[in-house]
Amino acid sequence: MPARGDHDARRRDVSEAVWQVLAERGFTGLTLRAVAAEMGATTGLLTHYFPSKKALVAYALDIADERTAGRALRRPGGGGLGDLRGALLDVLPLTPEATAMNRVWVGSWDGSLADPGLYARETRRYENWRSRLRPHVTTAVERGELPSGTDVDAVVATAAAFTHGLVLQALFDPERFPPERQTELLDGFLRTLQ
Amino acid sequence: MPARGDHDARRRDVSEAVWQVLAERGFTGLTLRAVAAEMGATTGLLTHYFPSKKALVAYALDIADERTAGRALRRPGGGGLGDLRGALLDVLPLTPEATAMNRVWVGSWDGSLADPGLYARETRRYENWRSRLRPHVTTAVERGELPSGTDVDAVVATAAAFTHGLVLQALFDPERFPPERQTELLDGFLRTLQ
Repeated sequence: MPARGDHDARRRDVSEAVWQVLAERGFTGLTLRAVAAEMGATTGLLTHYFPSKKALVAYALDIADERTAGRALRRPGGGGLGDLRGALLDVLPLTPEATAMNRVWVGSWDGSLADPGLYARETRRYENWRSRLRPHVTTAVERGELPSGTDVDAVVATAAAFTHGLVLQALFDPERFPPERQTELLDGFLRTLQ
Repeated sequence: MPARGDHDARRRDVSEAVWQVLAERGFTGLTLRAVAAEMGATTGLLTHYFPSKKALVAYALDIADERTAGRALRRPGGGGLGDLRGALLDVLPLTPEATAMNRVWVGSWDGSLADPGLYARETRRYENWRSRLRPHVTTAVERGELPSGTDVDAVVATAAAFTHGLVLQALFDPERFPPERQTELLDGFLRTLQ
């Protein structure tokens, strides 16, 4: 029986291999064979972890959630528009890591739209994201950084929409939407809210 | 040898079956077996049309392009902001048909991010979409519907971003984003540009 340390190390290897396959080939390319090749293991070993494609996809989404929750975040502090800006910059593909993460999430949507359990999970994930943006918008209105009478929920949904739509354009056209252009567009968008 | 009419009818059946499978199960669920079952044919018949999964996916994207190009469009006329609004409403999932179309496009991104040819096609598709929006924004500035000095390319990219991001939220949360809410958010967004 392998020592506990070996078990954890193997688990980290599997996670890393799944992530590499996802970032390069997406869910379309996520197979036991591809993960096994990535870690130099046999497909047989992998079937021990993942009895089905569905189990592999669920695990891949767990890893994506973990990496998203565990990533380094900007902490502008002070609340309001500055924090909203920071939270949206945290999502944009401004670094290779953030690009890989977005590529994985975008790739997950096809499967999530087809599976009721994954769909419900993505619906919650979106609402959780909006819930994290909401206090920044509320504070911005209270401070007069945004006009009084601003519809907070509308601004939150609009900001989330703008950001994810910019993610897509940047993923498919990184030359036209390099990091500085994305930041410029975000700042322009935030100015229109004021 | 079947008459020409039979051939065309069969082709329409195949297209319709591919579209139905895509709209319900996405690219993840797009298999020869699923398409055959949808049209009550044998998988063998389908292999005649599609020698590989890649050929089936390419055909599916052709159908999506055809249906997108062939759909009924709003023609507000007159140019400017009204036409921009109409063009963005044309994209939003406000009807079951538009919802199915968006579901298919969103589902296509995983595969397009993994295949250089499909990726280049999607990059062009995005730029073509922005090119169709651009004249409306230019006219809106010329007429004073948008402030002089407006950065036309920035507004175009921002409007495209907002719209696709709203598509995503509506696909994953149709109860929170019914057609009237989507329209309200679009109108709110357009007001912030003015």
